[in-house]
Amino acid sequence: MLGFEVIAETARGGRRGRLQTAHGTVETPAFMPVGTYGTVRGLTPAQLLEAHVSMILCNAYHLALRPGAETIKRLGGLHRFMGWRGPILTDSGGYQLFSLAARVKLDERGAVFRSHLDGDEYELTPERAVDVQRQLGVDIGMLFDVLVSVPGDRRAAAEAAARTVRWAERSRRHAPDSGATAFFAIMQGGLFDELRAENAASLAALDFPGYAVGGLSVGEERAETMRMAEFAVGLLPTEKPRYMMGMGAPRDLVELCGWGYDLFDCVIPTRNGRNGTLFTRTGEISIRNAAHALDERPVDDACDCYTCRTFSRAYLHHLAKRGEMLAATLATLHNVRFYQTLMEEIRAALAADEYERFAAEFFSTYGGTAHELG
Amino acid sequence: MLGFEVIAETARGGRRGRLQTAHGTVETPAFMPVGTYGTVRGLTPAQLLEAHVSMILCNAYHLALRPGAETIKRLGGLHRFMGWRGPILTDSGGYQLFSLAARVKLDERGAVFRSHLDGDEYELTPERAVDVQRQLGVDIGMLFDVLVSVPGDRRAAAEAAARTVRWAERSRRHAPDSGATAFFAIMQGGLFDELRAENAASLAALDFPGYAVGGLSVGEERAETMRMAEFAVGLLPTEKPRYMMGMGAPRDLVELCGWGYDLFDCVIPTRNGRNGTLFTRTGEISIRNAAHALDERPVDDACDCYTCRTFSRAYLHHLAKRGEMLAATLATLHNVRFYQTLMEEIRAALAADEYERFAAEFFSTYGGTAHELG
Repeated sequence: MLGFEVIAETARGGRRGRLQTAHGTVETPAFMPVGTYGTVRGLTPAQLLEAHVSMILCNAYHLALRPGAETIKRLGGLHRFMGWRGPILTDSGGYQLFSLAARVKLDERGAVFRSHLDGDEYELTPERAVDVQRQLGVDIGMLFDVLVSVPGDRRAAAEAAARTVRWAERSRRHAPDSGATAFFAIMQGGLFDELRAENAASLAALDFPGYAVGGLSVGEERAETMRMAEFAVGLLPTEKPRYMMGMGAPRDLVELCGWGYDLFDCVIPTRNGRNGTLFTRTGEISIRNAAHALDERPVDDACDCYTCRTFSRAYLHHLAKRGEMLAATLATLHNVRFYQTLMEEIRAALAADEYERFAAEFFSTYGGTAHELG
Repeated sequence: MLGFEVIAETARGGRRGRLQTAHGTVETPAFMPVGTYGTVRGLTPAQLLEAHVSMILCNAYHLALRPGAETIKRLGGLHRFMGWRGPILTDSGGYQLFSLAARVKLDERGAVFRSHLDGDEYELTPERAVDVQRQLGVDIGMLFDVLVSVPGDRRAAAEAAARTVRWAERSRRHAPDSGATAFFAIMQGGLFDELRAENAASLAALDFPGYAVGGLSVGEERAETMRMAEFAVGLLPTEKPRYMMGMGAPRDLVELCGWGYDLFDCVIPTRNGRNGTLFTRTGEISIRNAAHALDERPVDDACDCYTCRTFSRAYLHHLAKRGEMLAATLATLHNVRFYQTLMEEIRAALAADEYERFAAEFFSTYGGTAHELG
């Protein structure tokens, strides 16, 4: 059900593409807001559309625990359940089990863990991850992978990468054709070039419809993250969509899109919105800061979102200081739209083959530096 | 700036009217959702319009403490501040000071109290209440009145009613013409017919553009509340809008509109929404109840709100159980629309002179009984 084409490509490998799904077309590079439990926190599906969001990420692990994949299937699948008609990608739970490591028993078969919700014991295997995401009926599912907590530990990274390949083979056997849900494999290999290269080659041989880079931004230095991010994308099949998991500060997006990543997700725009940190073209602002108490300006003059069209910084400051729900909603709406606008500009710059100039202008306005300039 | 006309009237005194303000026309009887701090909790102004809300209530007392009436004036007035272009009515703080009685020193001049926010000392007088609401620039302000904690204590009720009249006289002198803000006087008099009659006559002589009934639903039995509500409305000038403060369970609205009240406010639809209690034509449901976990139906088949058009009870149940913000937003949106639909039906029944049949049908479907039938 999944199609992908590259429309334009830069000399550095950045590309403007198009992903076709049963629930609509996604112009790439694309950023997916995170809706872990089947809701992008605080926003209605109508507000997501208003912010020009084309695709979202949910979490199959969390949804399988509550309300249960079988339940969502009975209720017509995840799209219908959450009222979102656009494409959905789900993460399978590899990262969640990694971050709950103390409560997880991991072996070759899969993971056994106790739910943080009710203490009941659950098992997650590569096969079960495929089944769950098919029950949800999502457009793109992620294979169940193995992360390491110290990406610089070579032996652990090698073992995790090898198991990730064996699990990808099991997933492929369990789901020889992808059906309604297309499954992406996740590359591992820590911070080691040869492990990443070997892992990418093994996964590519299994011919999945898309690939992700996993296991980065788990505590290592940013310079290491970015070096590996640039190296890793070049190892993946160019004709398939390439997804960088979980990374997405604005400066990350600008750098990563220059190297050829096509898909992104990150909690930053939504979590920051709830905390009162809002994005502007000239950097982030903390709306709770007293400096905004009498400021009649919108958050960002250049932004066309409902929040910026309707409210002053002073009003958002007031709502945030009073702990009003609407503060979180309006800030999230703005941040999500800010991200989509940034992606629109990234796509335009890639299509026009003006990416280096665009990126330089972005950093000079937004502040901070690209990793390679830093 | 305020106009009011009665379009149709029933034999029992119920009336279909129209209130003209500088910010638009309000078809009456009308229900105002409560936006204490300048936000109807969880809803954007766009969502309020989508729910067909025509007028809202805010609280001048709370807004004067934070962010301050002077601040809101500097920012262009309350309408602009909160992005709501329709009419706004503000309560002045009489009820808030009554409910904080232990921290308030009340005398003939006014009230001195310590803010619950910062412990600073503030003074509220009838004159100051007028000034604050003019600074906010609202369409309708309420005079500062005096409530009693035991409405059945005749001596206290008589004293409070007499002071309320003296304060209304001071307010009238302070604001001889109403300017952009029209001020409504609030009738007091506890549960005593002759005190209410005397109070109503004194206030009517001051010729305010509208009148409210206050001091009810403060702990007395519902039968007493409703008996006095019916008696009191008949004491007020028929050519002016008549506002029942703070009462608004659905069955209250159906009864009170039969007797000739024109305006209402109540926290029930919004507070209940946040708590997961949703209104339907056949009564209230608690969405957190396990009975809804697999229910594909909307909250109310007959409702045209975004929530009912888009989501199942099962999804709302899931959101509420996970503590997701969207649960409160979607439930509030539904409840607010439910109330507006009820008011539309009430207005249609009054206009068609079919109110008794309408009320009987309402109670037979919704459950419960009218006070007079009970």
